[in-house]
Amino acid sequence: MSYLDKITSPTLLLDETICRANIQRMADKAARHNMKLVPHFKTAQSHEIGNWAKDYGITEVTASSIKMAEYLSGQGWANIHIAFPFNPLEIHLLDQIAKNQSVSVQLINAETTQILADGLKNKVGFFIEIDAGYGRTGVEVSDFGLIEEILLVAKKSETLQFKGFYLHPGHTYYMPDIPAIYEQSRNALSMLKNKYSTEYPNLVTRIGDTPGCAVMEDFGDIDEMGPGNFVFYDLMQAELGGCEKEDIAVCLAVPVVDIKKDRKEILIHGGGVHLAKDVLIDKNGVKNFGEVVYLNQNGWSVPENRSFLKSISQEHGIIKASDELMAKVKVGDILGIIPVHSCMTADAMGEYMTLDGKKVDHAEGRAQ
Amino acid sequence: MSYLDKITSPTLLLDETICRANIQRMADKAARHNMKLVPHFKTAQSHEIGNWAKDYGITEVTASSIKMAEYLSGQGWANIHIAFPFNPLEIHLLDQIAKNQSVSVQLINAETTQILADGLKNKVGFFIEIDAGYGRTGVEVSDFGLIEEILLVAKKSETLQFKGFYLHPGHTYYMPDIPAIYEQSRNALSMLKNKYSTEYPNLVTRIGDTPGCAVMEDFGDIDEMGPGNFVFYDLMQAELGGCEKEDIAVCLAVPVVDIKKDRKEILIHGGGVHLAKDVLIDKNGVKNFGEVVYLNQNGWSVPENRSFLKSISQEHGIIKASDELMAKVKVGDILGIIPVHSCMTADAMGEYMTLDGKKVDHAEGRAQ
Repeated sequence: MSYLDKITSPTLLLDETICRANIQRMADKAARHNMKLVPHFKTAQSHEIGNWAKDYGITEVTASSIKMAEYLSGQGWANIHIAFPFNPLEIHLLDQIAKNQSVSVQLINAETTQILADGLKNKVGFFIEIDAGYGRTGVEVSDFGLIEEILLVAKKSETLQFKGFYLHPGHTYYMPDIPAIYEQSRNALSMLKNKYSTEYPNLVTRIGDTPGCAVMEDFGDIDEMGPGNFVFYDLMQAELGGCEKEDIAVCLAVPVVDIKKDRKEILIHGGGVHLAKDVLIDKNGVKNFGEVVYLNQNGWSVPENRSFLKSISQEHGIIKASDELMAKVKVGDILGIIPVHSCMTADAMGEYMTLDGKKVDHAEGRAQ
Repeated sequence: MSYLDKITSPTLLLDETICRANIQRMADKAARHNMKLVPHFKTAQSHEIGNWAKDYGITEVTASSIKMAEYLSGQGWANIHIAFPFNPLEIHLLDQIAKNQSVSVQLINAETTQILADGLKNKVGFFIEIDAGYGRTGVEVSDFGLIEEILLVAKKSETLQFKGFYLHPGHTYYMPDIPAIYEQSRNALSMLKNKYSTEYPNLVTRIGDTPGCAVMEDFGDIDEMGPGNFVFYDLMQAELGGCEKEDIAVCLAVPVVDIKKDRKEILIHGGGVHLAKDVLIDKNGVKNFGEVVYLNQNGWSVPENRSFLKSISQEHGIIKASDELMAKVKVGDILGIIPVHSCMTADAMGEYMTLDGKKVDHAEGRAQ
């Protein structure tokens, strides 16, 4: 019985072979640059995929919330880093996780550092997050006053342990010049390492985004890389040049419920609650919420002529179909949709199905 | 102990008083127009909120997927309508639900009608969905050939029972002239009722969108209204004029994790996985992913000077803050965010907390 026979409603498919190849390629790249790869598991959020990653020498992972860290804990990770400015209201849960699991957090202000210094009973590592121009979060790279205020508070604590500097150049997602962003990021981290390594000889620097880690070959003296999306990739990464569409390891299997021949449109059960609502908009203003792949017994193939989701609502999706697809599609068929943003699609679906029909866990899943 | 003391991470708050007032107001309006209100529960997706609705004479509800219908079944509803073009791969699950629960589906093509006619063992009602210009889904209003083909297939079946015509004028969400859309919709449904009521004397017509049901006072001879969003409302509905911001019954409580005084920005734990990524864009191109309300022991208040979420990623949100908010906010505070699209936010969160700290169920919840 094929995995296809098990699908009656929107189902997130995961191609283990593609996923493992993506992990291997990034692990090889990190090794080539003498860096440690600490994948950001906000994308996969899975014990099973974590076990695959361990086959390629991965020993630590990153989470984006304490809830996710809690899910990933106790699975043999040497450390789980929570790459989100720590929320002081969650100190008790952090302390509880830290009893049995090496864990680190991200700090960007003195208030939260003080609360942790005063309240933690168990040892917790921390990175200082640096903002090198992205403007979302972090201490500005030249704000040595704030960096030293955080370090000073931590130094008086017996539980808080400084690990180094973390930088997520998220502007690689929407600014074309990745090499320039990376030059700035490398310089920022290198300057900080030189400035503080006398006092903290073991400090490390880590850089976090998938577009940069995928396309760059110059990481300077950065010690660690923490991309997340690369385990699956998606259409956004393909557009940024970090992968081919054939490298995308997940697709949403969707039932065809109606066909409008005159408009060359296909109505599917598959909308915002399945894919999330991330969108690519081309230079003519045409929206793309995902692209069609053809499912077969062994997985899927990317067609030469593109068909894409032109609009979605809560449960509906409308495909603008190629002539090739229109010629063969029938009501009751199942198509594949490769997502624009795989992290959000996986989070919305909360579960995967492999090509041999097995379920793979996700932190948001209902069935743990 | 206040509900506020229970919050340490993003939590969807539900104000029962506002929610009940919204239901009552729409129930009164339906009664005034001699229409039956059949709320679309894709918004609330909840047994508990269903029980509140029953206090206002609601006896039937609508779901947007068979999974949601399955969740809502067995709760004493006189009928559950699945307002989505039926997916023939789900016939077995439909038949199973129909054993113990009166249920109806939506049909828009002869293929699926035939599959149901051939395969169903239990009685299932159906509406024919009509497209009166929206172009998302449905039989074109003038396509009598297709309408009669569907009716003919159903007539030969002992299980399929024709209930009437359903029309969702979803273009009221993005086209300014709701009265014109409603005139077209009323005329379409009235014409169909006249044409087919001799043969089907019990057929009913139903119209489905919240913007129209909220602002219109002329429903012609339409028998039923099926809005969904009105139980909570949201910023999109406020912008369309269907409600005031004070009528919005849900808000996401979010922890403040950092403050950038110079930029007047507040970093919160609250992003796309909590709010979903629906966005309002003003005429200057400024994006708004949600607006700040001030939480207090009894609920929340809408400030005079607006603070809003200018950007979100998977877990992060950045608030562009008013001077008033900047003057009082601290790291570790909890703010409220009223969502742009409450249906998607509720689906992402999968659970509510009332203002007395009780949990309210949602179909996507982890804890049922």
